[in-house]
Amino acid sequence: MKFLQMSKFGNPTEVVEVVESDPPPPPAANEATVAVEYSAIGPAELLMIRGRYGIRPQPPAPLGNEAIGRVIAVGDSVKNVKTGNRVAIPTGLPVWRQAITVAAAELIVLSEQADPQQLSMLRINPLTAALLLTEYVELGKDDWIIQNAGNSGVGRSVIAFAREFGLRSVSLVRRSELVHELKSAGADIVLVDGPDVAKQVAAATGKAKIKLGIDGVGGDSSHSVASCLTSNAKMVAYGGISGKPAAMSPLIIIFKQVTLEGFWLGYPRFRDAHEKLAAHTRTAERLIAEGKLHVPVAGVYSLEQATQAMAHAQKGGKVLLKPN
Amino acid sequence: MKFLQMSKFGNPTEVVEVVESDPPPPPAANEATVAVEYSAIGPAELLMIRGRYGIRPQPPAPLGNEAIGRVIAVGDSVKNVKTGNRVAIPTGLPVWRQAITVAAAELIVLSEQADPQQLSMLRINPLTAALLLTEYVELGKDDWIIQNAGNSGVGRSVIAFAREFGLRSVSLVRRSELVHELKSAGADIVLVDGPDVAKQVAAATGKAKIKLGIDGVGGDSSHSVASCLTSNAKMVAYGGISGKPAAMSPLIIIFKQVTLEGFWLGYPRFRDAHEKLAAHTRTAERLIAEGKLHVPVAGVYSLEQATQAMAHAQKGGKVLLKPN
Repeated sequence: MKFLQMSKFGNPTEVVEVVESDPPPPPAANEATVAVEYSAIGPAELLMIRGRYGIRPQPPAPLGNEAIGRVIAVGDSVKNVKTGNRVAIPTGLPVWRQAITVAAAELIVLSEQADPQQLSMLRINPLTAALLLTEYVELGKDDWIIQNAGNSGVGRSVIAFAREFGLRSVSLVRRSELVHELKSAGADIVLVDGPDVAKQVAAATGKAKIKLGIDGVGGDSSHSVASCLTSNAKMVAYGGISGKPAAMSPLIIIFKQVTLEGFWLGYPRFRDAHEKLAAHTRTAERLIAEGKLHVPVAGVYSLEQATQAMAHAQKGGKVLLKPN
Repeated sequence: MKFLQMSKFGNPTEVVEVVESDPPPPPAANEATVAVEYSAIGPAELLMIRGRYGIRPQPPAPLGNEAIGRVIAVGDSVKNVKTGNRVAIPTGLPVWRQAITVAAAELIVLSEQADPQQLSMLRINPLTAALLLTEYVELGKDDWIIQNAGNSGVGRSVIAFAREFGLRSVSLVRRSELVHELKSAGADIVLVDGPDVAKQVAAATGKAKIKLGIDGVGGDSSHSVASCLTSNAKMVAYGGISGKPAAMSPLIIIFKQVTLEGFWLGYPRFRDAHEKLAAHTRTAERLIAEGKLHVPVAGVYSLEQATQAMAHAQKGGKVLLKPN
């Protein structure tokens, strides 16, 4: 059986290697073995390989985080899944591999109707979006939220979940050709980020009081989002793809009392919220099946093509691994 | 009687003018009239004159915010002050003037022993420091805090109050000649800000877990402060003299869960905390009298010299007005 590992911390194109190993052990009584269909490469893995993530494994370390697959064997006492089921594998396991044996209770049986590539991105970005929209600010029907990185995996999930929750969303993007595309995906307002974007947002939303800002970019772009927020609003950072610090004018912080805090699925309060996470996962699965949540896939690679896959993922765009 | 007013929003050197008016009304039964001795020019007034502050008066508007003076007349039922007392005038009144009549109950009689120029800066920076150190993070004896702008009025007050409260302080400054001066003023650690300052802070404090960062600068300097903080610490911004946004790495926000929020004396929760403010004011007065809190005065100007005073204050350094 093949899997990917990092030989040491460094540039993902240089330190990720494919390794041949024994197949996973046959499942114990409460376990199941899953053959991985698709696994997503996320910014979190790329950061982790560089040694800059909140989790630093000891290299050489197997890699991966989210995947779906087919159950190929089940233990004697397993009831919730059976051989042949398509399942979501719990996050946090090294799933950039051909097969894995896991606790069956944590597998989620998935719809055969939904696109399997989309389902392979079920358990990180959609949950991030759902928690960003529900766990920071009390929002009511038709309230507005604003985000940058509208076209990212989280961005598209925020658009879909905002609509699902009865909220209205403003998404800032870097390229005008994305405006129409994201509106078709359910965004209420999509604007190209720039120095006077706050005025454009005020005009487009009828001067809505926006209480939640979501920042996945940093730099000038976080300042753009902050500039559109109302007094006592909250800015939540979940990423920083610009590589620059999150930035906000002191005047906004001081006089508008906008606060800034972080989001990470790894916080114990989110990781331990099992029922909530399960409900949001089911919602995401339905949105995918209904075509309301769709993240364009930029490339699909085998494990042997790991170097190309890493290079592509770092260039931007959503890249999947297809281990079998 | 002369006073200063802003003719319109704009550059303080261009829009602040001296005006001749009637003397203030004689005090009513519960009032007192005070001849202003010294009044401080602060960054808040400079921002307000430019129309960028949390309060925007309608020009032409009289100016000023904090001052001390001598009581020259009291109303019939006034008990707490008498003619000849040196008093601190409540903040928020237009005290860049020769005399003012105010509610006597809000006057604080001051020590004759303390330096009157220092006392004229009693009610804004020292209260800011005291509230920054007490209202955001639970700190215990010998806990560390870190700030930038160590040499500013707030910075020096933070150093003095930190010592008073049994805390230990790290101050970041821009010029090495300030290191010795601020240590003499009671700072535990003073370091010149720079790219590797976090390592220097860790070495100097024995890797202290610093739970409170105080940012009066913005830009790279706020990032410096943030880099020195421990997990779940709080960063509080009270100003932004660099003119740049407050900035913090998303990795610090997300993985260390450092949050950012603002401080302003104008928040109702501070403004209405009368007993707390009175106690901190008394402490500040004592620290001034004992020589433990001293902010170097860069210049003292008459009301007629308003233009020079504004130019000097904008260049940096603490500038006072002496209206009589």
